[in-house]
Order: sequence, then C-alpha cells, then structure tokens
Amino acid sequence: MTYCLAIKLDSGLVFASDSRTNAGIDNISLFCKTHVFSLPGVMELVVLNSGNLATTQEIISSLKQDIENKQEGNLYTLESMFDVAKTVGALTRKVIERHSRRDNSIDFNCSLLVGGQIKGGPQKLFMIYPAGNFIEATPETPFFQIGELKYGKPMLDRTIHHNSSVDDAIKCAVVSFDATIRSNLSVGLPIKISYLPENKDSESIPSVKSYTIEEGDETFNRICKQWKEGLRNVFQSIEAPQWWN
Amino acid sequence: MTYCLAIKLDSGLVFASDSRTNAGIDNISLFCKTHVFSLPGVMELVVLNSGNLATTQEIISSLKQDIENKQEGNLYTLESMFDVAKTVGALTRKVIERHSRRDNSIDFNCSLLVGGQIKGGPQKLFMIYPAGNFIEATPETPFFQIGELKYGKPMLDRTIHHNSSVDDAIKCAVVSFDATIRSNLSVGLPIKISYLPENKDSESIPSVKSYTIEEGDETFNRICKQWKEGLRNVFQSIEAPQWWN
Repeated sequence: MTYCLAIKLDSGLVFASDSRTNAGIDNISLFCKTHVFSLPGVMELVVLNSGNLATTQEIISSLKQDIENKQEGNLYTLESMFDVAKTVGALTRKVIERHSRRDNSIDFNCSLLVGGQIKGGPQKLFMIYPAGNFIEATPETPFFQIGELKYGKPMLDRTIHHNSSVDDAIKCAVVSFDATIRSNLSVGLPIKISYLPENKDSESIPSVKSYTIEEGDETFNRICKQWKEGLRNVFQSIEAPQWWN
Repeated sequence: MTYCLAIKLDSGLVFASDSRTNAGIDNISLFCKTHVFSLPGVMELVVLNSGNLATTQEIISSLKQDIENKQEGNLYTLESMFDVAKTVGALTRKVIERHSRRDNSIDFNCSLLVGGQIKGGPQKLFMIYPAGNFIEATPETPFFQIGELKYGKPMLDRTIHHNSSVDDAIKCAVVSFDATIRSNLSVGLPIKISYLPENKDSESIPSVKSYTIEEGDETFNRICKQWKEGLRNVFQSIEAPQWWN
C-alpha cells in the first residue's frame, strides 16, 4: 500500500509520499512515489502515485521518454496545467486498458496526484482517477489523498485550509503520516516532502524543494514525540463523562 | 456504513456503536446496532453488528426467537462465552450462505462483535467473521472495531491498553467516534455506549449499563470541543520543521 498527500495552499503546493510498496505482506519493497519534472524557470511538476506499481512506473517512464525523444505533445511542450492533467489522464487510462484487456483478473488500476505550475499560469493540483478523468483542488477542498488515506484524514480535516501556512501544512503532513504509519504496516519511511512556493509576481517560477525523512530523522522524531505527548496530555485533561453516575 | 467498537478491559467491557445505515448516499436510515441479551444475574451479552442490514437483523431476530421458543441450544442455555461465539458464528455463516446461494451478485456479508459474561466464567469479547469463524480479544489486543474503522483507529492505538480505566476507554471511544463522524458522512449520531463491569468476586454478575448519545448531548459536545481545542493548541505549540532553511 501507499499513502500520498498533496495540498494546494494560497502560498504554494506541498506534497508528501511514503516509500513502501507491498505485494502481499511478505513482499515489501522501497520505491519513491514522488516524481519531479522540472524545466527550470518554465515548468515545475510533481507527480505522486498509488496503486499498481508496474502501471505507475510505466506511466512515469513513458512521460520521461517522450520528453527525452522530444515527442510531440510531451509534458514540456504543454501550455497549461489543465493540458498536463489531460495528458497524464489519457496516458493513465491507456496503460490500464491495455493491460486489463489481456488479463482482467488482476487489478492494474492506479491513481495519481499531479500538481505544479507553468510560467504565466497559476499553480494547480489535480487528482487523476484510473479512468483518466480528474478533479482539481479548490479553496474549499485544498488537499487530496491517495492510497491508505483514512487514518491520517481526521487531522487534515481539522487543520488544513487554503490559507494555512506552509509550515502548518508540512507539520500536519508529518502528523498525518505518523498516524498512518502507526496504524498500518504497509505505509513506512522514508517520507518525501516536496514544496513549490507560490510566486505570483514573477515571470519566472521557483524550483521544487524536496526533503527526504529517513529512519532516525531528529526533526521528524521530535514532532511525532511532541504530538504524542501533547495528545496524551489533552486526553488526560478532559473530564470523563459520568453517564452512569 | 457503520462504526462499532468493543474494548475488553481488566475492569470490564465497553461497547460503542453508531446508528446510521445507508444503501447508497441518498438512502440513509437509523438503526440501532447494539443488541443486549440479558438473563439477570446469570448472563449478559452485547452484540454489535456491521454489514448487510437484512443479514444482521435476521441473525438477531433468530437468536431472540430461539430464546422465546426455548429452542434447544438457544443463547440462554449455553454455559460458556466460547459456546456463545460458536453459536452466533454458525448462525452467521448459515444465514449468509443461504442468501448467497440464491444470488451471488449481492454482498450479504456481515461482521459481529460479541462480548459478555456467563455466571461462573470470565468476561470475553469476540469478533465474528462472515465465514462464521472468530477471534478473541487478549491483553495484547484489547479492542476490536468493525465497519468504518480507520479514521478512529490511531487514537485507540495510542491510548487503549487492557489496564486502561473505564473512564479513559469511554472518553477514547467518544474521541474515536468524533473523528469518524467528521471524516465520513455514513457514520452518525446517535451513538450507543454500553458497559459491563467486571465483578470477579461475585457469584452473580452485574447488568449491562447503556447510554445513548443523541444530537445535542452536552457532555459529548463538551468532550469533542475540548479535544478539538486541545489538538489545535498542541499543533500550534509544535515548532515547524526547517528542512529548507
């Protein structure tokens, strides 16, 4: 399984993904699920994937190969984030359909989160479904999750708004991943956190910054510990219901 | 959907269930999912159900009718909680199998939590699967959840141990249901909380106490508010990571 999260803030885009995949409980591997496509100053894209690993690797490799071969319609030739979502969505549907036609007993499906910015246009964030269609994040619904999403959703529901700060969003992502990792073995470190700052005034666009949280990361451990202890204190401070007394 | 939770503490059994069922998003109804079987001083059983409503109602009605008709092997004639789990499990399998034979396109499955005590024996808690087999709660794994369980699991994982107090268990159940209700429309009030105290020294056994949390319950609202504000304060008090500075 996998857990990926992307947040569209007024002040930028924040992405987070874990690195564990499993085909059965005894076949666990590490794969990075964050892919950055960067044409410096012109286009910055981040793609997160969950679902069938062969499908998602084929999608990412096809996108990269088309760029290398300067194929017509490759990502770096597109002029809007909407066109990026349409291109990735169409490719997703095509790959899943081709495999499913040959063997419909296997689940070849995958979901993707695609966010970024193209020079001259606004930042956008999309969730792409296995059918190739997609939805876009809005101020009312500023974050998308794919994969093992439920354990870490309550904290996001409580905390994240479109006008939250980047610091809060990253802190909340850490807390959300911590909850998921504690409750589900199939999600695990390292976690890759990426951030694309909003830069409305500039003709050029900044680069994606990424950080990988490895096992033993001191800041990660500090936040998880403070959160755990804080939760325990709040919990103890609440007076129990006396419904039977 | 449904969310049910049962906890086996050293000091007693705690149960909680919501009351919402849905067949599609536009067909939502209220049904109590907590069923108490009580033979005062001799046997106290609590059954929580999730899954196909027709299946679970048929199981509960059959158990009740067998008791009324003084059928051989009815719940009130059984001598151990293990026999109770076997009886409920066999009935569950039988009902699901009969319907599935006629129409395998519909999901007739259900899961049950069964806990209680029979005079002379210890308290026990079981989770019964659609196949009719079951597992028992232990000091290492003192709680079971069925239905829409993931949103409310992280807090239980952090807080509940076999030696937790009843007050803490009920408080944690409230917090767990609050998280689930906020993140998933298909789980809703009223919540029924039940409690069977442990009474190791007595020949007789105490009765199940139940309380129903209705919309507007002041204690429930107070706990949810204190929890929400406490979480926000803890979150704000944690220093953000400075991974890019």
